[in-house]
Amino acid sequence: MTRDEARALDAADPLRGFRDRFVLPEGVIYLDGNSLGPLPRATAPALADMIERQWGERLIRSWNEGWIEAPARIGGKIARLIGAGEEEVIVADSTSANLFKLIVAALRLDPARKTIVSELGNFPTDLHIAEGAVGCVPGAVLKAVPRDRIGATLGEDTALLLLTHVHYKTAERFDMAAWTERAHAAGALILWDLSHSAGAVPVDLNGTQADLAVGCGYKYLNGGPGAPAFLHVHTKWQERLANPVSGWMGHSAPFAFEDGYRPAAGVTRWLAGTPAMLGLAGLETGVDLLLEVDPVLIAAKSAALFDSVAAIGDALGLVCVSPRDPALRGSHISFRHPHAYALCQALIAQGVIGDFRDPDVLRFGLTPLYLGHEDVVRAGEILREILESRTYLNPEFSKRNAVT
Amino acid sequence: MTRDEARALDAADPLRGFRDRFVLPEGVIYLDGNSLGPLPRATAPALADMIERQWGERLIRSWNEGWIEAPARIGGKIARLIGAGEEEVIVADSTSANLFKLIVAALRLDPARKTIVSELGNFPTDLHIAEGAVGCVPGAVLKAVPRDRIGATLGEDTALLLLTHVHYKTAERFDMAAWTERAHAAGALILWDLSHSAGAVPVDLNGTQADLAVGCGYKYLNGGPGAPAFLHVHTKWQERLANPVSGWMGHSAPFAFEDGYRPAAGVTRWLAGTPAMLGLAGLETGVDLLLEVDPVLIAAKSAALFDSVAAIGDALGLVCVSPRDPALRGSHISFRHPHAYALCQALIAQGVIGDFRDPDVLRFGLTPLYLGHEDVVRAGEILREILESRTYLNPEFSKRNAVT
Repeated sequence: MTRDEARALDAADPLRGFRDRFVLPEGVIYLDGNSLGPLPRATAPALADMIERQWGERLIRSWNEGWIEAPARIGGKIARLIGAGEEEVIVADSTSANLFKLIVAALRLDPARKTIVSELGNFPTDLHIAEGAVGCVPGAVLKAVPRDRIGATLGEDTALLLLTHVHYKTAERFDMAAWTERAHAAGALILWDLSHSAGAVPVDLNGTQADLAVGCGYKYLNGGPGAPAFLHVHTKWQERLANPVSGWMGHSAPFAFEDGYRPAAGVTRWLAGTPAMLGLAGLETGVDLLLEVDPVLIAAKSAALFDSVAAIGDALGLVCVSPRDPALRGSHISFRHPHAYALCQALIAQGVIGDFRDPDVLRFGLTPLYLGHEDVVRAGEILREILESRTYLNPEFSKRNAVT
Repeated sequence: MTRDEARALDAADPLRGFRDRFVLPEGVIYLDGNSLGPLPRATAPALADMIERQWGERLIRSWNEGWIEAPARIGGKIARLIGAGEEEVIVADSTSANLFKLIVAALRLDPARKTIVSELGNFPTDLHIAEGAVGCVPGAVLKAVPRDRIGATLGEDTALLLLTHVHYKTAERFDMAAWTERAHAAGALILWDLSHSAGAVPVDLNGTQADLAVGCGYKYLNGGPGAPAFLHVHTKWQERLANPVSGWMGHSAPFAFEDGYRPAAGVTRWLAGTPAMLGLAGLETGVDLLLEVDPVLIAAKSAALFDSVAAIGDALGLVCVSPRDPALRGSHISFRHPHAYALCQALIAQGVIGDFRDPDVLRFGLTPLYLGHEDVVRAGEILREILESRTYLNPEFSKRNAVT
């Protein structure tokens, strides 16, 4: 694709108006929205209101002027992005903490079922947290197996199937309907990690009868660095699952200050500590922006951007490890390369920000709201120049950062 | 005390310069810093930098430009406020989540000790979380007893004594050295909740040989609504305790993306999910401000403010439930009154913000950095007027808010 062809596509893009809703620094092509979404223009004013008026002027009174409802209110908005009921989602803690709470709860549901099944190579925190959660339920076992053995591993002992909908590295996407049905056929619940899905690919939790889900707020939801995460519990499980991290905000009457814990009705019981209001304000702004967009347009443009980048990769002889079929993947594309880390650093030095995933994957997030075809073509030109000149072999690009 | 006498005291106050470091709304006397500390003037600019430059301009690169170290860096600063080593404190999650992690870990340390002892009437989330944590360790038991039976309840089965240093309602303060020694004499560890202590009263964790501690960031540390909390683990326990919420940020090599969990060395293993950067930026600003202050001056002024308010209460015939001896209490003062809720609302309607604690306590936080003696005298005049005119009996003041 030439730059002119790309510009023509961008001019006809029905989402082009959304680009100006984000702060995008000069000289940067940001292909890392799947790791940290960029700053929406509405966020700084919303945070200024949170800080200067709600905290500074109204002080403690703000708890009765919108703060206490924020986790459920924002959860209800996220529910609309993931096909859930508004009373099935709440914002709380981190993805890791939410995984812990739901896994422990699911492992306690049926004394005859004490196994959690997941995928080797799943995002690490999912497996790490599952290890920790298993340690909190006597007799519980984690079976992490390769993708092609997941189905055969489900059995009479399975309490829970834990899957990440879109793989963080390859972008492979599980068929949510099929795997939910398979888990149910085995008598197990399913817990979906939607961290690389929410706001990026169509998700229909209730249409697929999914039981439980979690996801993060700082990727495609553009909620800000370390934004609070969300948690979903299908209505049918809400009164049957108990939060092991039984903090006061999940209590039925937190301000009655009772010695004994009585869980709140509904999804509120999954709260633990005091809601993180600064993070919630950032998240709400990001979610509000996404609610303005037709998800069909997001999916179509993601597919078009993917095809452009895949074609560039093919032309440069890169090995694409992401599925070509849009129905089988998320909204990022990954290539394997023996010098992936150095390539990533050489790209960043020229303003093309993607990321590296150990040991040899170069990953680019394709976020339709603010990326254009011209961005992709220009990034491809820079990548070609780096590959051909072999500047990535400069030792400075191999120095490892703490965060890669 | 007359207004003139109060003004003279304020003019001689060595802390008077700190008042201008906070945003204090016109017409408000804020006696609720022990529930939500007010906004430091430095916070809005620090958050603007976090949002517009660090997130907006630097994007994902900021993780290598100070973000990843923030939990340990800010923890190290809090350590200086509570008498701990800088490598013994980290900022993570909420107080509730941190309690959960440490209680579960402590209950697993010695198979012969499975009891956690705490106080009835402790802050609810401490007892609620202890209930949940006990459910995660086979054979574990929570014994919550009245304060006068705590000592006798410690025994050969006690794994952990969980105490809140300063009582959220009465302000009673445990003798940290004596109770730590008592727990150790029984062979148990001690876990201090410092939520109403840090930044308010002298705390010397290492001087008293305390094992574990947690505390919140949004009260006297002025970190903002729902600020991240902190967690302390004495060096001697750091390699022996395991975090049950074993998320990726507590992994020894989070960016190696290994399937198996290997805890990080030191206090870093208590992290779970991705650090909440907006909240951390607010907290760091609040903590930096406190580090400028001589804690001896804070203690002295807190005692003087307490005496003024206690004298006002005595003159109005209110029943003070807080200890008169400054060594036996924190930095708030509480009165019992049959119409405490309505009184609190009537005060708020006139700009005097304290808070109500079920069922009959009216509580005032006395924060020396920005409160003056004149504030206290004026608040006393308003309280006298409300009590004498009995305007608090107006039914509008009895309507219960969600958050009290």
